[in-house]
Order: sequence, then structure tokens, then C-alpha cells
Amino acid sequence: MKPELANVKALVFDVFGTVVDWRASVIAEGVAWGEAKDLNIDWSEFADRWRLGYKPAMDKVRKGQIPWTRLDDIHRMILEDLLKEFKIEGLTEEEKVSWTHVWRRLKPWSDSVEGLTRLKKKYVIAPLSNGNIALMTELSKFGGLPWDAILGAELVQHYKPDREVYVSAYHYLDLKPEEVMMCAAHVSDLHAARRAGLRTAFIFRPREYGNGPVAVPDSARPGDFDLVSESITDLAQQMEA
Amino acid sequence: MKPELANVKALVFDVFGTVVDWRASVIAEGVAWGEAKDLNIDWSEFADRWRLGYKPAMDKVRKGQIPWTRLDDIHRMILEDLLKEFKIEGLTEEEKVSWTHVWRRLKPWSDSVEGLTRLKKKYVIAPLSNGNIALMTELSKFGGLPWDAILGAELVQHYKPDREVYVSAYHYLDLKPEEVMMCAAHVSDLHAARRAGLRTAFIFRPREYGNGPVAVPDSARPGDFDLVSESITDLAQQMEA
Repeated sequence: MKPELANVKALVFDVFGTVVDWRASVIAEGVAWGEAKDLNIDWSEFADRWRLGYKPAMDKVRKGQIPWTRLDDIHRMILEDLLKEFKIEGLTEEEKVSWTHVWRRLKPWSDSVEGLTRLKKKYVIAPLSNGNIALMTELSKFGGLPWDAILGAELVQHYKPDREVYVSAYHYLDLKPEEVMMCAAHVSDLHAARRAGLRTAFIFRPREYGNGPVAVPDSARPGDFDLVSESITDLAQQMEA
Repeated sequence: MKPELANVKALVFDVFGTVVDWRASVIAEGVAWGEAKDLNIDWSEFADRWRLGYKPAMDKVRKGQIPWTRLDDIHRMILEDLLKEFKIEGLTEEEKVSWTHVWRRLKPWSDSVEGLTRLKKKYVIAPLSNGNIALMTELSKFGGLPWDAILGAELVQHYKPDREVYVSAYHYLDLKPEEVMMCAAHVSDLHAARRAGLRTAFIFRPREYGNGPVAVPDSARPGDFDLVSESITDLAQQMEA
């Protein structure tokens, strides 16, 4: 292990895309639900559009254009627009709530639970996600993610990449910035974490966007961050956990 | 199960005294440490005095006489007074920090881990303690407490029995008040939880104060709270988990 990583005591994780496969999970539920409801929808497009709506909505919060809004509620707002656009009608309130909560039922990547379980034996592990606490808690129960604590955006009412979120990680864990490592598949998240003094670990998730047209997955070269890994088990290996 | 408990989705716990045996743990470390340092101290009295100092310090925060102060820091403030009073001199800063963090190394009661593990399969479980997040996180790692999330005083910068702490439990879990049950060995905690609309479960901990002169453990009769239990495994049994 690199000497500068020997002092790391906690690893905090981005979740959507880094720990769980949001796209395949939303598509799978959409397909099953569409068949039951006899809907003819391109669920890949539906999933991508739902995810695409997330950043502009969060940016409105970040710029103070709308008050603090939980990610669950942002998911619901975007869903309402998508239902109109895809001409899906007649849903009950209960169905809308259940469908919004598909984001609480996302499958972990195949290496996530094993990697986190290994890391937990040596380090404090916690999500540092834009997802609210209830969403993260339910998602973790659904996928068996063995976090020590749930940290993230809601505790400070700021969305990443606002600096406040990264600062809150070492503040709440009572650690120094360099004792906390941000782990993510997205370089913008890691750059912001580094600016706040955290260590950084990149996790390569080449399948995050499937074959979809929405985005090219981020990649990184050795040396771009404190650690570059291909999975959470690889991360655990490199952190000697 | 009583019909009014069928809607409970989350159980939140007081921790010091309810989940962990603070007194025996602090005494045991004190005895070992005192032998190593050749100190002649009544460690039962030391532990009780440390615990007794906690409520007046929190009350100063609750009344606004001092700004928000984490429980770790309150423990340190009381320790400084006790060191003078018991004439313990010459501790390094590192030793003082380690000794303050004895509160992060408290042993669970013998039924706690089994009871929580059973409850976790059916319910969301989280501490709702006056301990700060770092303290709770380390304490849970030390004792193997399998929480789904860490809730509590620090998230809202209020100490129990302030109403804000109980309200935060259902707020952060995105539940209705009556879907959350407060579980504690202390009736004052449960009375405050009830006033905030939560369900209440009493857990009898007759050994919390040992044979010490400090306090008589609380007791409850059937009907005093929504549920009255003798241990966390008994609570799990009654909640059909």
C-alpha cells in the first residue's frame, strides 16, 4: 500500500453507478411492470431519461432556485414529467410511490457486497451519496450492503459536488480529511473530494450506462487518483483488507 | 402482536444502558488501566461520577447556556474534572483521548446482538442516542451491533428528551410517527417519544447501575408502554421477528 494511504481510516462511497447498477435495475422493473400493464415503452430510454433529469433538478437546489428537496422527491418530480411524455396514464398514488421507490431497489454490482464486507473488517465504510437517508437505508437492506453508518447529502442539505458534503464525511466521523477516502466511478465526484482534502479511489464501472447513448463511462489512469481500481474487491485487495 | 404494532416499520434504540453495559465496561477498563499505572482508585465511583456528569452538561446545551457540543467532547470535559478530583496526574494528550474513547468501547448486553440481528430481518433498526455519530459508529463496530443507519442527537443538534430528536427519527426514515417505535430502558425517554407520536417499548435492564448507589433502574408494568420486555431478544420475540 502507498505510504499516504496507511493513515486512511474510513472509506466513503458514491452509490448510484459505483455500488449499484441503477440502469439494469430500473429497466428490469420497467419491463416486468410494462408487461403486466400491457405498455409498449422503451424502458432503456425511460431509465436514461429518469437519470438524466436528476442533475438539473439537483443543480436547481445547489443554486438556491428551489429549496432543499430530497432525492426521493426529485425522483417523483421527474417521474411525473416522464409519465406525461411517455403517455402512461391512470396510475394510482400507491403505484406512483412504488415506482418512485424503484430507486430503493437497485441491485449491487456483483463485487460490491463481497468487497464492502472485506473493507468493513479494517475500515469504517459509509455511503456518501446524494440519496437521502431513507432511500440509502432501504437500498442497503435490499442489496445487503453492510455499511457502518449512512452519511450523505441530506445530513447537510447540500448536493455533491458541493464541498459541504465532503467536509461532512470527516466531520461526522471525527477524522482528519486525509483519513477519509472517497470512492467513486465518477471523476467529477473525486475531483471535488480531493479539493476538500480527502483521499480518492476510482472504481471503473464500464457498464454503468450499458450500451445506451447517454454517457461514456469515466476512466482513469494509474496516478490520476490515490488509487485506481476495477471493482470494490480490487479496491479491498489494494487496501489490504 | 397487538394490532397497533402491526404498522411498525422501524425500531430506534436508546444505547447507553439499553443496548450496552456502560458501567461494567468503564469499570473494567479503569481497573486494568489503574493496575498498569499503579493507581488506587474506586473505579465504580469513577464510572458513576462520569456518567452523572453527563446530564447536567447536556442540560446546559438544551437550555442554550453553551453551544452544541458533541457527547465525545462532553465526556472529555467531565474527564478533566474527574482527573483533578481523583488526583490523577501526568496523562499525555493521547492517553486522555484514549480514555475519553472508553465510551466507544462498551460491551453490549448478552442479548443485544442476537436480538438486533433478528429484528433487522423484519424492521429497520437504528440507534437514537445522545451519542454522536463517530461515537455510535465506533461503538457499533466494537460490539458488532448490526444497525441499518446511525440516527440520533447530532443530526439535529438537540439532546434527548428534546422533541426534535424523536421527530428526526421518522423524518429521516420517511415514515409516519406511529410507524417508528422507541426502545429504551428509561421511562423518561419513552415518555418523550410518546409525546412525539412514536410507539414505545420498554426494555428492563436491572443491572444498569450494578449495586451502585447512583440510581434505581426503571421498571414498568404491562400497559405502561406499547410493549414491555425483559431483553432485546424478548422484544424480537414479541415483535415476531
